[in-house]
Amino acid sequence: MKIGVLGTGVAGQTIGSKLVHLGHEVMMGARDVDNPKAVAWAKDEGEKHALFGNFANAASFGEIVFNCTLGTASLNALRMAGAENLKGKILIDTANPLDYSSDNWSLTVCNTDSLGEQIQREFPDTFVVKSLNTINADVIVNPTKLAERSDVFVSGNDMEAKSTVIRILREWFGWKSIIDLGDITTSRGVEMYMLLWRSLRKAVSSYQFNVKVVRSAQ
Amino acid sequence: MKIGVLGTGVAGQTIGSKLVHLGHEVMMGARDVDNPKAVAWAKDEGEKHALFGNFANAASFGEIVFNCTLGTASLNALRMAGAENLKGKILIDTANPLDYSSDNWSLTVCNTDSLGEQIQREFPDTFVVKSLNTINADVIVNPTKLAERSDVFVSGNDMEAKSTVIRILREWFGWKSIIDLGDITTSRGVEMYMLLWRSLRKAVSSYQFNVKVVRSAQ
Repeated sequence: MKIGVLGTGVAGQTIGSKLVHLGHEVMMGARDVDNPKAVAWAKDEGEKHALFGNFANAASFGEIVFNCTLGTASLNALRMAGAENLKGKILIDTANPLDYSSDNWSLTVCNTDSLGEQIQREFPDTFVVKSLNTINADVIVNPTKLAERSDVFVSGNDMEAKSTVIRILREWFGWKSIIDLGDITTSRGVEMYMLLWRSLRKAVSSYQFNVKVVRSAQ
Repeated sequence: MKIGVLGTGVAGQTIGSKLVHLGHEVMMGARDVDNPKAVAWAKDEGEKHALFGNFANAASFGEIVFNCTLGTASLNALRMAGAENLKGKILIDTANPLDYSSDNWSLTVCNTDSLGEQIQREFPDTFVVKSLNTINADVIVNPTKLAERSDVFVSGNDMEAKSTVIRILREWFGWKSIIDLGDITTSRGVEMYMLLWRSLRKAVSSYQFNVKVVRSAQ
């Protein structure tokens, strides 16, 4: 499949590489068409299935698009990608609208709105599915790194798009337990969870962790 | 031990009853000295170790105090309890500042502040430890109801107070895994987690669940 990955950071590179290794054609998109990190990534991945371009190139190229940009820059990046290039496509939104500038992280949108909802409102012809934002990139593409099964979440308004994303998480990335939280407003909860995630990351002294939902024994 | 429980709802009643059954003397506090729910609870519990009074009575009575009031009413309840009656004591804050009025829950304080911090600021001579707000009352007092070990969190500025609360969670309530998240600012994360908790509650169709932190296999 042809996949667009917007963003050149750790999440974009890790997800992009995993998809290339699975045999997909991946275009990494950045603000500039010749972003040095995207160029280096494509070279590292052998270039045949790993391409680079600007946000619009990558969005146009992908049958499915991953948003791996910084949450605070996502709306601008997606505007540069262009509504026409994202129209009718699934956009897997992995971003968190986090302000890292002070010792206590905070969100630039939360509580009564979320980045997932902002994106869905601005791109009504795109099927936005919020997912993977609660897990470090390493673990996203290799869930068996963890000592036992843990959970990944999906939020979105379109059931068929969520089914496709659930299949991708299961078949491409190896996730065994995927919880559908509901419509795109449930992005609020997974984005706001990031403050707890940050405390847990410090408490366990590792980025390699996740949560598992434990149910009643009865 | 003498324990004050502020609040007459499910959390206060469930925690209060558990403590009475463990042999402690518990006074349930409410706005009015003869709150019908508190009176009925004390009667149900045989009255010998289960007492009732107003917020100030219960705070004065307790060597340790649980805040089990509604989060949106907690600051007012604690003002009625009185700083002098809470001075030098541990206050275990189990409340969430949730507005339930619309279909999507929201918090009345979050992101750059939290109820835990508001309480600590207003009662500087009290050792506020945020805990148990992420778990349904049933599960709080009976963690083995769940299919496997899950995690409970503590947040607070005073290490000794947190150690005491950790001992209480372990020895009285039976929690095996307790994670110290850090100072009272980490209340933000556990309070903001409640929006995800609400989606999970719908997804698992039960109040009886919790999360377990799964670490790296290496």
